[in-house]
Amino acid sequence: MGRPLSRRQLLAGTGLASVGLAAAATVGGVAAGAAGAAGSTIGGGQSVPFTGPHQAGIATVAQDQLAFATYDVTAAGADGLAGLLATWTAAARQLVTGRPLDGSTDPAAPAADTGEAAGLGPSRLTLTVGFGPGLFDDRFGLAGRRPAALADLPAFAGDQLDPAASGGDLCVQACADDAQVAFHAVHNLTRLALGSATLRSLQLGFGRTSSTSSDQSTPRNLLGFKDGTDNLLAQDTAGFDHFVWVGDDTDQPWMVGGTYLVARRIRARIEQWDRTPLADQEAVIGRSKASGAPLGGTHEHDPVDLDALGTGGYPVIPAGAHIRQAAPSTNGGQRILRRGYSFSDGLDPVTGELDVGLFFLCFQRDPRTQFVPIQRQLASSDSLTQYVVHTASALFACPPGLGNDDDWGTALLGDGRAY
Amino acid sequence: MGRPLSRRQLLAGTGLASVGLAAAATVGGVAAGAAGAAGSTIGGGQSVPFTGPHQAGIATVAQDQLAFATYDVTAAGADGLAGLLATWTAAARQLVTGRPLDGSTDPAAPAADTGEAAGLGPSRLTLTVGFGPGLFDDRFGLAGRRPAALADLPAFAGDQLDPAASGGDLCVQACADDAQVAFHAVHNLTRLALGSATLRSLQLGFGRTSSTSSDQSTPRNLLGFKDGTDNLLAQDTAGFDHFVWVGDDTDQPWMVGGTYLVARRIRARIEQWDRTPLADQEAVIGRSKASGAPLGGTHEHDPVDLDALGTGGYPVIPAGAHIRQAAPSTNGGQRILRRGYSFSDGLDPVTGELDVGLFFLCFQRDPRTQFVPIQRQLASSDSLTQYVVHTASALFACPPGLGNDDDWGTALLGDGRAY
Repeated sequence: MGRPLSRRQLLAGTGLASVGLAAAATVGGVAAGAAGAAGSTIGGGQSVPFTGPHQAGIATVAQDQLAFATYDVTAAGADGLAGLLATWTAAARQLVTGRPLDGSTDPAAPAADTGEAAGLGPSRLTLTVGFGPGLFDDRFGLAGRRPAALADLPAFAGDQLDPAASGGDLCVQACADDAQVAFHAVHNLTRLALGSATLRSLQLGFGRTSSTSSDQSTPRNLLGFKDGTDNLLAQDTAGFDHFVWVGDDTDQPWMVGGTYLVARRIRARIEQWDRTPLADQEAVIGRSKASGAPLGGTHEHDPVDLDALGTGGYPVIPAGAHIRQAAPSTNGGQRILRRGYSFSDGLDPVTGELDVGLFFLCFQRDPRTQFVPIQRQLASSDSLTQYVVHTASALFACPPGLGNDDDWGTALLGDGRAY
Repeated sequence: MGRPLSRRQLLAGTGLASVGLAAAATVGGVAAGAAGAAGSTIGGGQSVPFTGPHQAGIATVAQDQLAFATYDVTAAGADGLAGLLATWTAAARQLVTGRPLDGSTDPAAPAADTGEAAGLGPSRLTLTVGFGPGLFDDRFGLAGRRPAALADLPAFAGDQLDPAASGGDLCVQACADDAQVAFHAVHNLTRLALGSATLRSLQLGFGRTSSTSSDQSTPRNLLGFKDGTDNLLAQDTAGFDHFVWVGDDTDQPWMVGGTYLVARRIRARIEQWDRTPLADQEAVIGRSKASGAPLGGTHEHDPVDLDALGTGGYPVIPAGAHIRQAAPSTNGGQRILRRGYSFSDGLDPVTGELDVGLFFLCFQRDPRTQFVPIQRQLASSDSLTQYVVHTASALFACPPGLGNDDDWGTALLGDGRAY
């Protein structure tokens, strides 16, 4: 703990010395046969290519299961951090193919892979890495590489944040169609971080709450409503370029093609919600619960008419309705990519109520003009705030995608370093 | 809270008055077309018949996802308890078909169903109910109906049980191939219990750890080993009759065709396990990690030879190996049906270590001669005990299956009651 290890030491210590080469060959093979609908390599499920202009797990059609981990870096100095990120990259290239990590086969040593995902196949596993604001303090000499858009989030009205579950120097978003595959990936990256970073939080999620592709039907969140009807869709490349991917106008060229992730653990006051009459729930959301249609409409994808007036001259979609307050037209035209998951973490030990809700994940090119003002609007005016409380919050800069020869360390720290 | 409600009052209060009739028709229809591979009614996934000689969710081919809830009954008196169980039965008949609960469509009232599983289909949902020892105290006049086999579990060496997560008057095991479907079922049964019972614990699990059918490949637990190679299989009806289903020799005829469920939350000291050399892990389990073959064998299903001696005259399968200590031949020929799930509940707030492991569920005809002596043997002699700690424990009597006209209340309390 705290003693910096070289990349070579790290790899030797984990039995992963051979991962780099083996993974490069594997990824090449998978990617070659994986344009469009990715091909499966082992067992059930398809693989998602690791390389590309953007990280996988953002525009990727949302998978069913989430394991989201944050870490505090304990390595001292940039070389230690770079070594960790190089190790993670090599491991991630291998993990997304569905094959166990290569490495030691010496029975007298710990195995390179913990083994619980053997035979489960890639299951569309994606691993998306982000860098928290704290990484740009004085520990790693990165103050000059901090993007202006990675500005600490302000406090929002109603926040009840648990500091231990918030923040973090690094995050790994593991998404897969199999929960054990997602867990296994985080488990093994955590193990590889030994001596360089410690796990800060781990959140499991299920049942993607947002449709991110026009091929997917819109799933429901734990409030019982369809969630993501008007989300950005992967097919909308122009929308992604405009709202999600960092462009050339950034102050940090290393972030071009990247994006910013805001994670919020939003607990639902589900017992109160469940006791709310159906019409009131629909007024809070602004949609029919059964069909997902906007109030005043008939079908889910009917246009949302925020100006329509009904009986007595009141708006058909109420003033405080969630879809009004979150609408682009209420927020200067801004949109974000939502990619959240439901969570159920047992009972609140104090109240005995269900500790359930939405682990909200959203991606955008600049939180200062997207998540922050939208959330400020919601915190002040959204009727739904009566039924939810934000219990954790984190912000990360997700670098662009990698080629076959680079890694998350060079992405963050730049080329030409000594390691 | 505490005031007994009649069944009629309960149903009226929950908007479920019409469930009984609708569910009966539905279940009949599903069951009629559901011999062998059950037919799907809605969306993805198949439905599992609710009625039958045994409850579903025991011999049912294991699903991928678990939501396991326990409850404390707050209703005063047998009528209140009977009303709750009748309500639950009617709801369960409906839920396993994949259709939302029938009931109120009045927008001015809370909806009968919370809605988050709408469109997800049955997903092979099963709902299995059990009665804890506490239910047979003096609250409900049930002391005379307590089975001798429902004897409180003794303490075992090494137990570190959390009382709040242990025990319970009632349990509901919800298993499905979709996590949101399993959660939805528990969510709605909890809501229907308002005024009659409060949720005591809720545990989610994933990635069934035990094969329960010869059609399933053997999955792996979070230790990375195949788990359930020698489990009882659904095809082995003689084995189920001998080891799982309560027979005519019971002291409580209402339990004939039922079974006893022992639930143990077994946390793995996963960091220590991960640091253990492969050969040592295999010696602890007694099997090859990669193939699942017993030590000395080549293939997973090779016979386990506990008498084989290797170099130096030492047993090939070590004295403390888990498969030796858990073997029927070490335990007087006894076997149990294992049906556990992996869990990952974030971090231990004290140590920062992963709070993960196995939510162990096992079914048997008499825990006094099955789970208890087996667990006593393991606690004293199994090398695996170095790497695991039992953090919660519960015991339940699961009544037999229901026909179209009876319910869990009559199963427990007998016919001819006043409610």
